[in-house]
Amino acid sequence: LFIIGTGLIGKTLLSQIDSQRDYLLEHSGIDIRIAGVANSRYMMFNREGLEISSILNELPNGDTSSVEFFISRMTELNLPNSIFIDNTANAIIPIFYEKILQKNISIVTPNKVAASSSYDRYRSLNLLAKQKNIQFLYETNVGAGLPILSTIKALNDSGDRIQKIEAVLSGSLSFIFNNYDGSTDFSLLVNQAKEKGYTEPDPREDLNGKDVMRKIVILTREAGYPVELDDVVLSSFLPESCFNVDSVEEFFIELSTQDGAMLSLLNVARENNAKLRFIAAMESGKCQVSLHQVSEESPFYGLTSSDNMVVIYTDRYCDNPLVIRGPGAGAQVTAAGVFSDVIYITKTL
Amino acid sequence: LFIIGTGLIGKTLLSQIDSQRDYLLEHSGIDIRIAGVANSRYMMFNREGLEISSILNELPNGDTSSVEFFISRMTELNLPNSIFIDNTANAIIPIFYEKILQKNISIVTPNKVAASSSYDRYRSLNLLAKQKNIQFLYETNVGAGLPILSTIKALNDSGDRIQKIEAVLSGSLSFIFNNYDGSTDFSLLVNQAKEKGYTEPDPREDLNGKDVMRKIVILTREAGYPVELDDVVLSSFLPESCFNVDSVEEFFIELSTQDGAMLSLLNVARENNAKLRFIAAMESGKCQVSLHQVSEESPFYGLTSSDNMVVIYTDRYCDNPLVIRGPGAGAQVTAAGVFSDVIYITKTL
Repeated sequence: LFIIGTGLIGKTLLSQIDSQRDYLLEHSGIDIRIAGVANSRYMMFNREGLEISSILNELPNGDTSSVEFFISRMTELNLPNSIFIDNTANAIIPIFYEKILQKNISIVTPNKVAASSSYDRYRSLNLLAKQKNIQFLYETNVGAGLPILSTIKALNDSGDRIQKIEAVLSGSLSFIFNNYDGSTDFSLLVNQAKEKGYTEPDPREDLNGKDVMRKIVILTREAGYPVELDDVVLSSFLPESCFNVDSVEEFFIELSTQDGAMLSLLNVARENNAKLRFIAAMESGKCQVSLHQVSEESPFYGLTSSDNMVVIYTDRYCDNPLVIRGPGAGAQVTAAGVFSDVIYITKTL
Repeated sequence: LFIIGTGLIGKTLLSQIDSQRDYLLEHSGIDIRIAGVANSRYMMFNREGLEISSILNELPNGDTSSVEFFISRMTELNLPNSIFIDNTANAIIPIFYEKILQKNISIVTPNKVAASSSYDRYRSLNLLAKQKNIQFLYETNVGAGLPILSTIKALNDSGDRIQKIEAVLSGSLSFIFNNYDGSTDFSLLVNQAKEKGYTEPDPREDLNGKDVMRKIVILTREAGYPVELDDVVLSSFLPESCFNVDSVEEFFIELSTQDGAMLSLLNVARENNAKLRFIAAMESGKCQVSLHQVSEESPFYGLTSSDNMVVIYTDRYCDNPLVIRGPGAGAQVTAAGVFSDVIYITKTL
């Protein structure tokens, strides 16, 4: 493994690998070695495998970090069964994915940048991995460790056809709407969600729906439909004025002017015995993202906490969909999803 | 592939493979050939691959069938990357699994007999497959095509620990309790479920809970706990008298004497704003199967139709579980699950 990124996910992955290494060696004959690690400042290598438990302590004694140099060193080492793991949300590192795959090195990443970039790029990276008989895996791009992309892939491979996907893909928006019962002003609830760490430090990044758009684009592509981010129809439940402000403080002031409008939406839903859910939907390749009223029959009605939920309708799962639900964010489950992708690759070797 | 069983699942699998063969060859470089097929009467072989679309028509021109002979012929052919598929619910064929694995032939099966037999046997078959570096896969034993066993396996492999599982594992009992609202007598509802094909021809096989017991045993073993079928504590919601009768007609007469008792259970649940669900539960390796009252917070509350649902609590999915839901029976989804196991094996070759 060659790992870039020692933030929350990267650290957690190192710790999970450290705990599980002996088990995998004994039970599955998988000998995982970490031959290179980098963060934005330092990097270090050991072709025999770094001592995992001391990587984070030793890293500041390493060389000055550079993505280019990290990748050249990785390719020079030319170790069999190499896997590159990009544990960042960085936009630069994905530029190198093509070069890495060209060198017959598989890639595993929670970084959404590549899979949600242009369809051409998405497709060419996937085709390249296929041609090279290696893997380009990004299960954690959607729903963190939940087995969503692998399930869609297995359905496609066995000849099923994905007709429709409906999904709650944002943990923060899930938390906000699952808990919005009118007893607290909407803007105050968003502030509480922020305080509890359910949203980004700037909640606009969650409330603008962009992250959900990227995720439904990835799901749609995995389902076999070419789609671009610009093709997704987003209906924001907030006016532009909320986002066209300079600071988080001003955003909350703007947001509070919408408390009445949000309460009206909630009350209309209640009159219909429905609940509000922020849903990304794909049907026959067309994507929409918007706030919905869902009635008691909907799988989304009973959603609680900050859970994600993906509802998949196919030729074979037509009357009743296949549903996967659970926490779709968090360092432990995201790192575990990255780890599972790595283990899957070891089984294909 | 060497396939035994041309009943509903077997036929559907042949048709799915026939439709998907060219796609897999073109997109994944997987060349699937069926080198042998048998049902209880006939069998035929072709080491180059049988013409899939005509197998069912040609089979009656084949040799007289015998499990022993089918397996010897398969092992004599000694083809690389062979997979044996047992598409039956037969108790005899699993006796040969050990011999088949010994010959380095992987096994895929929806047949629950082996995985729910003694723990020693379950374990030795799995160990043997591991030692031989081949696969023994039975995803469709629980929840048909739903990705349940593969998810538990991935969680375990990445070092997570399954603490608790709660599940609705019977499509027929799910249909019955999801639809029991007191407007129809319980016995009449069971009869309707039978007429619609949701239950076995003899509904006692569903209502006695034995099938659910076998499934929770398999889930518990996959989660890493040794358990025997006899260890499962079953609380039947019906008295013994319902099962100690000679015919289905008499069963329904006995069942109708329980209509009042069932209505009382329903009314008690309603007073608690709860619903009735037949749940199999495992906690730290201990299994229980019984009828539960579930309240609105429970993931089972919103269950509809004949869906299965598996709720998995782990070290990492602790506050909020990982939930998988959908149809857990039916020829199309079961055959697709068998097919997915086959495709997984091709990726490990």
